[in-house]
Amino acid sequence: MTKPVHVRIISPITTLGFRSDAAVKSLETDGLIVSATQIAKGPASIESEYEGAMAAPDTVARIIEAEREGVDACVIDCMGDPGLRAARETVSIPVLGPCNTGMHIAAMLGHKFSVITIVNRLIAQFENAAALAGLSSRMASARSVEIPVLELEADMDRTRKILIDEAQKAVQLDGAHAIIFGCTGLFGCAAAVREGLLQRGIDVPVIDPIPTAVNIAAGLVRANLSQSERTYPLPPEKAMPGYDMPDLRLNAAE
Amino acid sequence: MTKPVHVRIISPITTLGFRSDAAVKSLETDGLIVSATQIAKGPASIESEYEGAMAAPDTVARIIEAEREGVDACVIDCMGDPGLRAARETVSIPVLGPCNTGMHIAAMLGHKFSVITIVNRLIAQFENAAALAGLSSRMASARSVEIPVLELEADMDRTRKILIDEAQKAVQLDGAHAIIFGCTGLFGCAAAVREGLLQRGIDVPVIDPIPTAVNIAAGLVRANLSQSERTYPLPPEKAMPGYDMPDLRLNAAE
Amino acid sequence: MTKPVHVRIISPITTLGFRSDAAVKSLETDGLIVSATQIAKGPASIESEYEGAMAAPDTVARIIEAEREGVDACVIDCMGDPGLRAARETVSIPVLGPCNTGMHIAAMLGHKFSVITIVNRLIAQFENAAALAGLSSRMASARSVEIPVLELEADMDRTRKILIDEAQKAVQLDGAHAIIFGCTGLFGCAAAVREGLLQRGIDVPVIDPIPTAVNIAAGLVRANLSQSERTYPLPPEKAMPGYDMPDLRLNAAE
Amino acid sequence: MTKPVHVRIISPITTLGFRSDAAVKSLETDGLIVSATQIAKGPASIESEYEGAMAAPDTVARIIEAEREGVDACVIDCMGDPGLRAARETVSIPVLGPCNTGMHIAAMLGHKFSVITIVNRLIAQFENAAALAGLSSRMASARSVEIPVLELEADMDRTRKILIDEAQKAVQLDGAHAIIFGCTGLFGCAAAVREGLLQRGIDVPVIDPIPTAVNIAAGLVRANLSQSERTYPLPPEKAMPGYDMPDLRLNAAE
Amino acid sequence: MTKPVHVRIISPITTLGFRSDAAVKSLETDGLIVSATQIAKGPASIESEYEGAMAAPDTVARIIEAEREGVDACVIDCMGDPGLRAARETVSIPVLGPCNTGMHIAAMLGHKFSVITIVNRLIAQFENAAALAGLSSRMASARSVEIPVLELEADMDRTRKILIDEAQKAVQLDGAHAIIFGCTGLFGCAAAVREGLLQRGIDVPVIDPIPTAVNIAAGLVRANLSQSERTYPLPPEKAMPGYDMPDLRLNAAE
Amino acid sequence: MTKPVHVRIISPITTLGFRSDAAVKSLETDGLIVSATQIAKGPASIESEYEGAMAAPDTVARIIEAEREGVDACVIDCMGDPGLRAARETVSIPVLGPCNTGMHIAAMLGHKFSVITIVNRLIAQFENAAALAGLSSRMASARSVEIPVLELEADMDRTRKILIDEAQKAVQLDGAHAIIFGCTGLFGCAAAVREGLLQRGIDVPVIDPIPTAVNIAAGLVRANLSQSERTYPLPPEKAMPGYDMPDLRLNAAE
Repeated sequence: MTKPVHVRIISPITTLGFRSDAAVKSLETDGLIVSATQIAKGPASIESEYEGAMAAPDTVARIIEAEREGVDACVIDCMGDPGLRAARETVSIPVLGPCNTGMHIAAMLGHKFSVITIVNRLIAQFENAAALAGLSSRMASARSVEIPVLELEADMDRTRKILIDEAQKAVQLDGAHAIIFGCTGLFGCAAAVREGLLQRGIDVPVIDPIPTAVNIAAGLVRANLSQSERTYPLPPEKAMPGYDMPDLRLNAAE
Repeated sequence: MTKPVHVRIISPITTLGFRSDAAVKSLETDGLIVSATQIAKGPASIESEYEGAMAAPDTVARIIEAEREGVDACVIDCMGDPGLRAARETVSIPVLGPCNTGMHIAAMLGHKFSVITIVNRLIAQFENAAALAGLSSRMASARSVEIPVLELEADMDRTRKILIDEAQKAVQLDGAHAIIFGCTGLFGCAAAVREGLLQRGIDVPVIDPIPTAVNIAAGLVRANLSQSERTYPLPPEKAMPGYDMPDLRLNAAE
Repeated sequence: MTKPVHVRIISPITTLGFRSDAAVKSLETDGLIVSATQIAKGPASIESEYEGAMAAPDTVARIIEAEREGVDACVIDCMGDPGLRAARETVSIPVLGPCNTGMHIAAMLGHKFSVITIVNRLIAQFENAAALAGLSSRMASARSVEIPVLELEADMDRTRKILIDEAQKAVQLDGAHAIIFGCTGLFGCAAAVREGLLQRGIDVPVIDPIPTAVNIAAGLVRANLSQSERTYPLPPEKAMPGYDMPDLRLNAAE
Repeated sequence: MTKPVHVRIISPITTLGFRSDAAVKSLETDGLIVSATQIAKGPASIESEYEGAMAAPDTVARIIEAEREGVDACVIDCMGDPGLRAARETVSIPVLGPCNTGMHIAAMLGHKFSVITIVNRLIAQFENAAALAGLSSRMASARSVEIPVLELEADMDRTRKILIDEAQKAVQLDGAHAIIFGCTGLFGCAAAVREGLLQRGIDVPVIDPIPTAVNIAAGLVRANLSQSERTYPLPPEKAMPGYDMPDLRLNAAE
Repeated sequence: MTKPVHVRIISPITTLGFRSDAAVKSLETDGLIVSATQIAKGPASIESEYEGAMAAPDTVARIIEAEREGVDACVIDCMGDPGLRAARETVSIPVLGPCNTGMHIAAMLGHKFSVITIVNRLIAQFENAAALAGLSSRMASARSVEIPVLELEADMDRTRKILIDEAQKAVQLDGAHAIIFGCTGLFGCAAAVREGLLQRGIDVPVIDPIPTAVNIAAGLVRANLSQSERTYPLPPEKAMPGYDMPDLRLNAAE
Repeated sequence: MTKPVHVRIISPITTLGFRSDAAVKSLETDGLIVSATQIAKGPASIESEYEGAMAAPDTVARIIEAEREGVDACVIDCMGDPGLRAARETVSIPVLGPCNTGMHIAAMLGHKFSVITIVNRLIAQFENAAALAGLSSRMASARSVEIPVLELEADMDRTRKILIDEAQKAVQLDGAHAIIFGCTGLFGCAAAVREGLLQRGIDVPVIDPIPTAVNIAAGLVRANLSQSERTYPLPPEKAMPGYDMPDLRLNAAE
């Protein structure tokens, strides 16, 4: 038996109970262990650049801890990928953002993709994320269901209905050939949305970013790959008044 | 125990014994079965657009057969990704090209990537592949070791040495932060090349395209994803004199 | 009197009678001879990546033969440009694809162009062709009349009417300043479509790809130009079991 | 007399005395008041994505305070533009990052620009900044003098000499037509570097990012312009445990 | 007291009285002097490439004269930026075009910008201007009010109403986050258009190109910056029959 | 016999005898008549944006006259394509610039092209021309032989030698697969340069812009194509003090 791969999901928000144990365990398969944690300092949820910035410090701390506990890879549980680049500098294990991962996978699977996000104000962020990924030419559009993240589950039938409506518009009006959920709070809706689209005669991949990123992270571990030290070198040793961050040199010494 | 994923490697060349059973089996892990086959009609090896075009018809036939045998995903065993788009139109299971997959994974892991290929004449093809992937802005360069594919294994020490030299130039002169092998004939060299680069003080991911594509294919299957029917619809029913291709409707009917 | 230029049109489909002698001869002018041939093995028509791939081997064979017969340039008679890159590797005379040629000519003549093609499933192919040509920023849109290639001539009035309607939308909704027919089966419709657009107050070039490519091919011959051997080098000598292709060295030896 | 414009410089580092009063006052002209402050929590200096992320929260707090004190515009004193997007969401007055501003001004003044930064590891960050600005096609290169930010002033003659050497290479090897300093710690060196380049026969603008951003900020205020609320909407009201940030609604109520 | 900055506005049209003294003087602030002049040879107004080309020679002459009179910077008073590149070659003081300046400032302030111009025929010119600025990816759209430049002031209420309507469409349909007036004849309308948009719930910067360019020009002078001699070298000495242009060497000798 | 096509070459410089009758007549073939003229007002030669701007008005006048004389197409005899867009607005016959035409033809023939121009200061102009053509991704480089246009013929052996040297560098260092002469003063050198490159083992197309543009212009006439009225609409009727231009309405009335 080969050694199982352990992927940890890091929720960069302080609202408790957002990511259930059952959901996390549903991702496990033969040879794949999945755990989850969340930050203690930062925003209740993330719907702005400001909240993403406030979430980053503690997200990085959780990822450094995960590496020290022997976790094989981390996935940040927010489509803003908060702290992704910073965290990658501080550890050797692969750290994946669901937005960056979802966009590359979508581009592998279809001609162009659309992101269906929760609020309009995030559309520019997704266009920026595509630009940084080098994938602007592959993004058909970003669209919004206009439901704040913490209200998504209040009426899941309505949420799914609007998701299907916007996904249909993305395909028929914007030319999308693949759909990415623009909020990890939509975890678990992919099968229903794909089915809803099929009933309307639309057959496209629907990418649920957390399952996708977890499985791709596992694939990277099995292929002995991690982020480039050249892009993400260890930060220099330096004072950081006002924060109680883990000592970065401990990992480096390993 | 979850159902294992079965990935098949399709070698689009007619030279026998190119891909050893041992190499194929070395890719298996808990929950992952890997098999391999090759084409009967087409080029001895692929080092041109012409040979890629001649390899495509029988590659597509092998992929249609794989789906009918219950295989979960296919990986084409050539960095020219011959027949990739055609094959994706004819089956529902994920079909991955190692070039397209390797480029997206490299772009996920580092700022820019370089492809180290075997002969100069392929450089334009890799630049075209990056353009189609939407990743031109993420490719630092394509470089060549100038060793034909069927001679790569004649002197593996020399091959590895030149690979390391060219990868070093890609990093230091071209700004690459990740390296992709530009020929699947280099399968198995990644650890040695990465080690050689580390000894020269260069710490970058070295992407071995076949192990990478096989593990990403398995990840896609586990995440219930495949290529978009919208990009790759089933071809219309039509006469095809001069070829004895499998009937495309059999898959469609399933 | 200067030596006349001989351009050959290669139809990459096996349906007989698709390209009439009268149509071919209508392209001749002082100093320009035009002939035509077609493939014997491959699809009845081309409306998918799969069919394009199946058409390529015999298309290449016909182009090699044309060069040996003393033809000065070849034009492939399909907007998928099947076998274009492969064929260019095997001969010294210019080989033109109507799609690639039409896009560059359209970009020379107007700010942005649209392709009006026959079926929706080809739109992604045209966007890929524009990307490979480097002309994505010059393509306004690809639109479809939704009539299969072999049915275009069944009701030419209706075909022309829908072409004019879609071209008008391309201009008024998508910002096209030039129109390219997205199927060479529309050969001969340009004057009627241009007239129809003028009657609606729209004055844009309407590019009929075959006449355009034939005349541009003749211009290249007169200017002593052909495709770059650096981009399209002769393939290495190699076994090709299952195919009976002309020996590539014969041309090289000339 | 028209009302003077008050621009505040926010240093996002905790090292005291980095930005002298004399330097700040040297920027004042008729109708322009310049003040400066710095963060209390965060990195001693910024040479990584990690340090930029750690600097963002207190930088945003300082900018919110500046607006409440009646300051007309803020400039962040670091070429990583830490917290720029987050801060812009929280205030109505213009907030400028010297990197983003310097790149647009450089693109206005010359064909292509190069950034001369302090350490190699920042090069990818500058390429990402150019991509987000939409200016990748206008950046010739990013080059480094390999001197950490807090050591720049230790031997200013050597620093200036290396700056001139790298700027010369940027012009002659990379095709730069304008130079941007890649670290605000180089404030005050522009005249000397420009003079040094002129002595070598090279006549290009040398952009000192802080004076440039301060004067452009003043110009925006006089032209009644600020960042778009559409791109940078006020974040929703929300708990932020672990941080003591100013209440965002106070500004909104104004 | 610091030396005031003198910016001159050059109107590249021969219609008298187009730019009133009051408008020019309204741009002055502490430390900023603004003057204006116009060409004597060339078009009555500019609404085509042809008219822009005819305006360029005398515009360049006026700018050379301005430098000799001791003016610190020039702004060309037309969104076609006629003669901008030519003039920059002939003088050392900064010469700004309102289109190029407005686009870079818009890109600094918001995610994407739209240009609201006067006639449809100019839309391609604005797309070309964005391409040359490197900002195609930041332009959401160019839209037109379809009112010729010399009729804009005939019914200013109607002009403002249509401007607001088109700006609203640019924001809501095209995704613009900032608006640029596409004709300097709209000078003075920004406050009203911004107010009109706010009344419709749309809060975006509205860039009035002349005030913006004048203030940015002043900022460049204060930051000791001008266009790059590398991009805009002095033209060689040469006969110019048919024109009575100032001797370019006089400036060079200064 | 089909009606011959008449193409006129317009030299936008006032130096007499630059384009010999013999050179012009050498372009004629069966069915192709070539004539030439030049401007009376403007620069002795063109090596700057300023000179290009000064050449434009009389170039446009010559092109309007050509159309009235029954010429079928015009080619501007300068790689700066001076007056191209302006002229296209004023006539219905095709007007081609050798730079724009040469770039599109080069992009059709090979993977990437380089321009070998006469003086360094023109390199940015060629990069801008490629950007406007949409072909930035297809241009490998622009290089210069540093010989002013009017001195090119003083020592043609040396000129050809340096051309071959720079073309070789373009291919081997920059990745060019096709060469375009960057000055129409090099007319007639293509065969020698191509031969020189072949002797060094480099087999790439060498594009002589005037013969290429003349033959492509003839091809467009035969294919019934001209520039788009949508991109180049007739300018409005308007006063033009200081110039004695042909009345644009005469052509429009035809």
